[in-house]
This record gives sequence, C-alpha cells and structure tokens, in this order.
Amino acid sequence: MTVHSPAANRWATRRAEKARRLAQVRSLADGVLLPRERIVAALERLIMPGDRVVLEGNNQKQADFLSRSLAQADPGVLHDLHLIIPSVSRPEHLDLFERGIARKLDFAYAGTQSLRISQFLQDGILEVGAIHTYIELYARLYVDLTPNVVLVAAYQADRHGNLYTGPSTEDTPALVEAAAFRDGIVIAQVNEIVDDPGELRRVDIPGSWVDFVVQADRPFFIEPLFTRDPRLIKPMHVLMAMMAIRGVYERHQVQSLNHGIGFNTAAIELILPTYGEQLGLKGKICRHWTLNPHPTLIPAIESGWVDSVHCFGGELGMEPYIAARPDIFFTGRDGSLRSNRAFCQLAGQYAVDLFIGSTLQMDGLGNSSTVTHGRLTGFGGAPNMGHDPHGRRHASPAWLDLLQTDDPLERGRKLVVQMVETFQGSGRPSVVESLDAVEVGRAAGMPLAPVMIYGDDVTHVLTEEGIAYLYKARSLEERKRMIAAVSGVTPIGLRSTAAERAALRRDGLVALPEDLGVDRRAATRSLLAAKSMADLVEWSDGLYEPPARFRSW
Amino acid sequence: MTVHSPAANRWATRRAEKARRLAQVRSLADGVLLPRERIVAALERLIMPGDRVVLEGNNQKQADFLSRSLAQADPGVLHDLHLIIPSVSRPEHLDLFERGIARKLDFAYAGTQSLRISQFLQDGILEVGAIHTYIELYARLYVDLTPNVVLVAAYQADRHGNLYTGPSTEDTPALVEAAAFRDGIVIAQVNEIVDDPGELRRVDIPGSWVDFVVQADRPFFIEPLFTRDPRLIKPMHVLMAMMAIRGVYERHQVQSLNHGIGFNTAAIELILPTYGEQLGLKGKICRHWTLNPHPTLIPAIESGWVDSVHCFGGELGMEPYIAARPDIFFTGRDGSLRSNRAFCQLAGQYAVDLFIGSTLQMDGLGNSSTVTHGRLTGFGGAPNMGHDPHGRRHASPAWLDLLQTDDPLERGRKLVVQMVETFQGSGRPSVVESLDAVEVGRAAGMPLAPVMIYGDDVTHVLTEEGIAYLYKARSLEERKRMIAAVSGVTPIGLRSTAAERAALRRDGLVALPEDLGVDRRAATRSLLAAKSMADLVEWSDGLYEPPARFRSW
Repeated sequence: MTVHSPAANRWATRRAEKARRLAQVRSLADGVLLPRERIVAALERLIMPGDRVVLEGNNQKQADFLSRSLAQADPGVLHDLHLIIPSVSRPEHLDLFERGIARKLDFAYAGTQSLRISQFLQDGILEVGAIHTYIELYARLYVDLTPNVVLVAAYQADRHGNLYTGPSTEDTPALVEAAAFRDGIVIAQVNEIVDDPGELRRVDIPGSWVDFVVQADRPFFIEPLFTRDPRLIKPMHVLMAMMAIRGVYERHQVQSLNHGIGFNTAAIELILPTYGEQLGLKGKICRHWTLNPHPTLIPAIESGWVDSVHCFGGELGMEPYIAARPDIFFTGRDGSLRSNRAFCQLAGQYAVDLFIGSTLQMDGLGNSSTVTHGRLTGFGGAPNMGHDPHGRRHASPAWLDLLQTDDPLERGRKLVVQMVETFQGSGRPSVVESLDAVEVGRAAGMPLAPVMIYGDDVTHVLTEEGIAYLYKARSLEERKRMIAAVSGVTPIGLRSTAAERAALRRDGLVALPEDLGVDRRAATRSLLAAKSMADLVEWSDGLYEPPARFRSW
Repeated sequence: MTVHSPAANRWATRRAEKARRLAQVRSLADGVLLPRERIVAALERLIMPGDRVVLEGNNQKQADFLSRSLAQADPGVLHDLHLIIPSVSRPEHLDLFERGIARKLDFAYAGTQSLRISQFLQDGILEVGAIHTYIELYARLYVDLTPNVVLVAAYQADRHGNLYTGPSTEDTPALVEAAAFRDGIVIAQVNEIVDDPGELRRVDIPGSWVDFVVQADRPFFIEPLFTRDPRLIKPMHVLMAMMAIRGVYERHQVQSLNHGIGFNTAAIELILPTYGEQLGLKGKICRHWTLNPHPTLIPAIESGWVDSVHCFGGELGMEPYIAARPDIFFTGRDGSLRSNRAFCQLAGQYAVDLFIGSTLQMDGLGNSSTVTHGRLTGFGGAPNMGHDPHGRRHASPAWLDLLQTDDPLERGRKLVVQMVETFQGSGRPSVVESLDAVEVGRAAGMPLAPVMIYGDDVTHVLTEEGIAYLYKARSLEERKRMIAAVSGVTPIGLRSTAAERAALRRDGLVALPEDLGVDRRAATRSLLAAKSMADLVEWSDGLYEPPARFRSW
C-alpha cells in the first residue's frame, strides 16, 4: 500500500487527512488487515464526525458486520454522520440514528425498515438528504456526495486487499471507486482472508483501491429477494401472462427485456416453454435478459429460449446452476457469476426493448407507485427501468414499432408495460383517483410525490381485463379513457361505457383477451412449466438449491 | 491464469471455444505476454471470421497498435468481422473494411473518418449495425452485442496482466468487463511492461480479467479534443457566456453541471473568475462538474470556484496539473487522474443540474444536430447529457425551479441549454426550417434522422439575441414563437414580430441581455481570465503543458 505523505498543500487536503487517519490505526492493523476485535476502535479513528459514509446495503448483500460494528461506536466520538445506504434493510442501520452516531440519510430503497424511517423522520431523529433510485445515488457519489469512507462486503480478500466479491458483486465497484479515487477510505468486510491473489477465486476489486479488510464474525447477510414460489401463481396471473406474450411480446417482437419482481412476471417466465412454445415463438422473442437470476426463468433457459442474462445482483441458491450455465450468464474465469448493478441498470435502460413490472396502485393517468400509507420505501431501480430514456439513439424493431407517424423527427420508444390487477387481495381497488404516494409525499415533506413510474412513460397497461395501448393515445383524455376501459369495476373503470370500450377496441387502442386470440379457459396453472419449487429444482437438474424457507420437502 | 478445460458441455460452448483459441497461441506467448512481432499471427488465431470484436477507439485514447496489427491480417483467414468501435477515428479502422477483414460496424462517433464511412456505406463495403451514443453502446455489450474479443490500450501492464490505464481510463473497464465475464478474450496493448503489481503505478483493471498483453511499437495515440485556445474566443462568445451566467446559472442556482465542447462554453469557464466574481456568485453556483479536464477551467479552479471535477477521459497536457490538484479531480493513490466514461456519463445524466452545449444547427422547434451533409459523425455522448432523464427522482433547487405548477405529480427537470449563434461563420443561418440531419438520415437509410438533442428535451435556447425559456412554453406553438424571438434575422427569426417579442419578454418567456442586466458593451475579451494558452499555463503555475500545436511561444 502506497500512500502519499501529507503534503503541506492546499490542494491536497483530502489526501493529507486520509494519511493522518491511516496513521492513527497503523498500530492496530497488520498491513491492510484489521483485527476483528479492534474494528470498533479502528472505525472510531478512521471516521470523523460529520463524515459522509457509504454503507453497503445493497438490494441483496449487506456489509452487516461493519454496520453492526459502527453501531457500537461511542456517540461521543462518532456523531452526526451522513450515511449513504443504497438499500436500508438492517435494524442497525436505524440504530445508528437512534444512538446519534448518524444524523442524515441518503438512500434508494428501504424495505423492512421503511416504517421506522418514517417514524424517525417524524421524531426528528433522522434527516433525509434525498430518496434516490439506485443509479442516481451512485452517480451522486461522483458529484456532490463523494464519500469520506466506504464500507463494503466481499467473499474473499488477500493480504494485498484484492477482493473477490463473488456472485454478488452488485454495487460494490461503483461504491468503492468513488472513495478509492478521491482520497476516501475503503474498508471491506470479508468472509475469508487468503494470502495471495493466486489463492483468490478471482479479483473483482483491485487491492490498490482498498485500504483495509477485516474478517467478519459471520458471512455477510444476503437475502433471496427474487425467488417466487410457483405454487403461489394464480390462474389470473397466467391469464395476464398469456396476454403479455401475445399482445405485447409477440406483437412488437420483443427481443431484449427486463422483468420486474412479482408473480405476474414469474408467470410469464413459466409459460414461455408451454404457451410460448405452442405459439411458435421460441427464438423469435425474449432472447436477451437483464435481470436478477430469477429461479422461475430456469425452465425457459433449459428449453432454449434464453441467449443471455446479465444480472443486477445474485440470488441465493442459484449459484451452482449459474456456474453450470456460462453460455447464458456472465461468469468469471473461476466460474461464478459476475453481477454488476450499475452496468445492468445501464443495460436495462439503454439496451433493452421492454420493461414489464407489476404495481400495487395506479391512477387514471397511468402514474403508479408501490408506496403505501406510512411507509417511505424509496424507489430502488424500477423508475430507471420504467422510463423511456430520451438519450437513446439506436433503433430496434420493437422500439421502432411504437412510432405513430412517419415524421423522421419522431423517436421510437422503449416499451414500458405496467401490469396491474384491478383489485388487490384485500378487495381494495388498485386503480384509484389519487395515489397514496401523493399523501405520503406530502406528509413526509417530500418536494414531490414518490411516484415510481409516471403515466407518460407507460406504453401499455395490462390488467386481467385487457391491454390499453397507451402509446397510441392522441391526448390525455384518450389515455384516461383507455385506462378506464381496462380498469374493470373499480371507480375509474366504471366511468367507461360499453360503447366507449367498443370504439376503443375497434380502433385498436384497447384489446381484450379475445381480441388477442387468448382463450380465457386455457389460463390455468397447468400452463406453468414448473408448479412448485421442487419442479424448478428438477428443471435445473438438481443444480438450483432453494433456501430452506422455500423448501417443503 | 486459470482457464477451464473445454467441457463437453452444451452450456459452456463459449468457454470451450475460448480455451481452444488460447491453446492455439500458447506456443507464441510467454504466459500473458504476446511478443510484438507475432501479434498479427496471434490475432489471426485468437479471432475467428464473423466474430464480434471491440476495438478501443475511445473519444481520445486509441488502441492503435492493435488496430494497425489487425489491419495487417490475411483477409483469407480473418474476414467478415463485426467491429464495435466507440469512436472511429483512425484510418486503419476503415482500412479493415476496405480489405474485407471487417464487414459490419457498430459505433458511437466518427469524427475525421465520417466522410469515409458514408462513402463505404454507399459503396456497400461496410454495413452499419447501429449508430449509438457511447453509453448505449457499452450497455449493448451486456445484452445482444457481447464481444468475442476486446482489444484495448493501457499505459502499463505487469506479467500477471494487471493494467494501469493511466489518466485515460475512459471506456476501458466497461469494454473489458463485457468480454472478461462472458468467456471472451481480452488483449491489451501497453506502452510498458513491468514484472510485478508492485511496480505498476496502480491497478485499474485486474489481471484476472485480461488474457494477453503486448507491448506496442509506440505509445498509444491520444488526441487533445477538449483544448480550446482562448485566443479564438470572440466578444460574441463572451456576451453569450454572460447571459448564460445571469440568465441561467444564477437564476436557477445551478450547482452541478456538464459543459459541452466549444468556444461558447470555454467562454463561460473563463469569465467565472471575472464576471461571475463581480456578481458575487462564487461558492453559490457551478461547484461540481462532470467534464473532461478542460484547460479553460483552470482559472476558475485556481480562483476557488470549483469543488470537484469528475472526468469522462483525460486531456493531453493536463496530467501534471491534475496530479497537483487532488482535492478537485478524481485521482488514484499514485496521484494520476482516474477518468471513467461510463460513470461520468451516469453522473452527467443523473446527478447534475445542467447540461449546456453549443450546436451548429437547430430547427424552429429546438431540435438540433451537428450532422452536416455527407457526414455520418454519430452521436458521441451529447444526446445522453442533453436530455431530461425521466428515471431521476431526487430533487435539487435547480431541478425544482423548473416546475410550472404545484401539482405533486409534476416532475422537476434537468436544465438542457442549447447555445447557438444565429449565423455560422460561413454566413449560413444556424436556425433552419429543417435540419440537414433529416436529409443525411434519409440518404444513409437510417430509420430516423440523426438528431443530437430533441427540442422537447431543451429547456433553454440561448443565442446572441437572448434566452428563450422553453420549459415555460405552454404549447408547441408558443415554443416556436419563443425560438423565433431569439433567432435574429434568420428566416425563422424573421417570423417573429416586434409585438410578439415584446409580449414574450413581458411574460418572462424570453429575455434579452438588457432584461438580464447584461451590459452588451462589457462583453469584450477583456473579461476573459485567460486570453491565450500562455495565460492558462501561467494560471496553472506552470503545471499545464499544452501540446505543441497549441503553443506559440
């Protein structure tokens, strides 16, 4: 490790400060290795009050040993930190605020901790810098949120600081680079320490970017967020999946795509090898994917539907399967997955034909949000996937298919498909006058409502009633009528008259299952290529190892 | 280097094929080192006909030893390659097509080779996959354009394949990762080879991502694209710069920004320490920058205007200055710049308040293009910077300042400012009925016209006549009237009547210099903090070393 000596230089104050801090822990460390039992003392010397500190909380992977250690710091020594956490999902993330160690938070997603964030915000214990999408949070690390210290998680390190991040590379490179190249301090918790680079499975982050590694008390926490049990897929999901394939994928010749999380999209994945096969679509649609390694994609992969999958992150239990399918997945020389959220986000925005996701609530204009009362869940990555990137210039058949005129100045569009069941399980309508998000945003003092996907970016709304081809709408008024026409017996849907619906169908603006040649009676679970987790394991030739909670055998 | 043995596995065909190819050159190579004199033979064995090959041509840096070597291959052995070149700027890039070695081209920018591309296209020698922006071209490497082979350039390598890319990291990590993690082959030309990682200045790309390195016959080619001689800045540029500062930066409190290339934006950079200072704006605007290290930014940096600069690439001659200003620039432990085009593009899209650039031609709706007759120059990065990313969710004062209503569902906007002199040097109007790009696109058989920035993404048009605040336009008709009002005596401008202009000024939709408190008489070169290259060197304390062609002393 070469560190410049503090220069008496007004242009190198960050470097001097870093050198000063490193000197403080020299006696604690063995080169780049920090002893586990001195980690709290080391953090207290390497971090200063008021610092901007990135804590790797990603979508799945968590630097939880470091966050637990930081939470043990003395608030008299370490206070008023500005934490930057992509995904806040550990209780100690919030304990840090309760104990006064941290004061300000920038984040992208909250999940299980969202209620507590809202509460702390109300109580004045926590101040929110901003709520971001993942990619804009990384972006700001290179602009006005450059961190002083970055705390990350990896599988292995060697004694030079080289890191193997394993199948869950996720955000780590984007987080580390922002500190490593602006005289910030990078500390990695690892599950294992080896001596030399040759003993690492591979190098994901070069040692010259990393200041310290510490072996954690237990392997970092990881969450199987993208696993959906086929047993919970209902006939209605199958019907909607059939409509998506016929009315969107086949119609527009969708080659490359991103699926959001949920049972609706899992159903699409599971009927490609059955329904998609019957339609003769194999090799014609859905060849290139940007998505987490969904277990429900296994049957489509095994049936030869999928050419490639680039992943945001890993998925617990999918590691052996992925390692055995290197033609499909991005893997390193060692054979394990290389995920990369920053690049996958880029790919999902700029290189694919379609995003499809489900939402909990949509208004009559097509704006949608998964934010519900009392919860500040944040945005995650959906708003990035679910918009039409105006900076794109290359054409693809699907992108061009959405052109409405022959004006050479009209652009193609990314397909943004919103799947929504008109009623939630609770019996509350999903299509509403005003999103809950509007009220949540107001209550939390957000400058704007936390909308996930805006109606003007949505090209198709797909409900169990039918598909509204919103990209064809010639006015806001027409867009409203089209959404109402597929909104069933919700208050919004009841505004649509039979005559209006007939006219919209005649004009090709709305299509019902029968208009698409989708036989409602065929929409049963028997179309699912896998009906249970055990079926997925069988499809995978025993390679997929579902986490215990998903196993019933 | 650990490479898996070819598995008799239908899911590992890429890995087996890679292993087969590597075995073919084992006798030529010394571990990862390929001998310079056998490079053509090695390329002929490592690349197969029809392969997708990424050739690092970046904006500035060129893997020119590898492109020159590839052009010497036997077209009987190596033919019909699909080349992916971010920036086509070497004659041999086109020779590859003339010789039949390559057949298809995906690119983002062409520059000096643009005429030849157009010619070859017409002659059927070359087929264009698509013309991209930089970032979407990288994105597609992870989706449907995964490369078989990637050829890149770096400063140093060690005998393990670790690379130091130097201040010009640019696109290299994004290009290498796509092959390294999908069983592609990565070959790097380097200026120097050292034995061990410890002798490298730093590691930018880990050796476990790189298959071969070869020492080039001479240092890789690099072009100082972002250097503008202050001597060529005219009073009109100064006037427009003053208007930008008062009418846009100050008005909207722009904190973070990206400047395009050109004399207009160079003038803004050079009057911050004079005019900006007089207005008392230091520390209040323009603190965080995403841009190449423009030499014309030196006076603003030295005067304390700038907190941070993150760079797409390097700039020839700026290296010593950057190394001496680590508080401002992103630098590694070794002290040299770390640029990263992929991350800087992200930052420029998602994390900054404003993009401002100049254009050669704009139509009456605000669509603009730098494409002129007979040239297929491509898009580069401007369309990414010059659009409003609908996937952004965090707010900033400038972004919120463009809200027009108090509807919680209205979004803020990125400021996209188009600077255009109403007439070009040649006396041809810059504001036109129809962009040349429309005709060029038609002639080249492009599906859409090659528009750089679309009018609906432009928030401000700034000419020497005044500023049109397009984001306030309530209709397409009003947008047209606003643009006409600042279009001077061009045919478009002549449509604007005095009464119309007065009304637009009264409504705050258009502002003339006098409306902004800008004194036209003050718009002289004397406002420039540096009037020559020599002045820039002096400001830099002798650290900036302009390339010879910019030196007159």
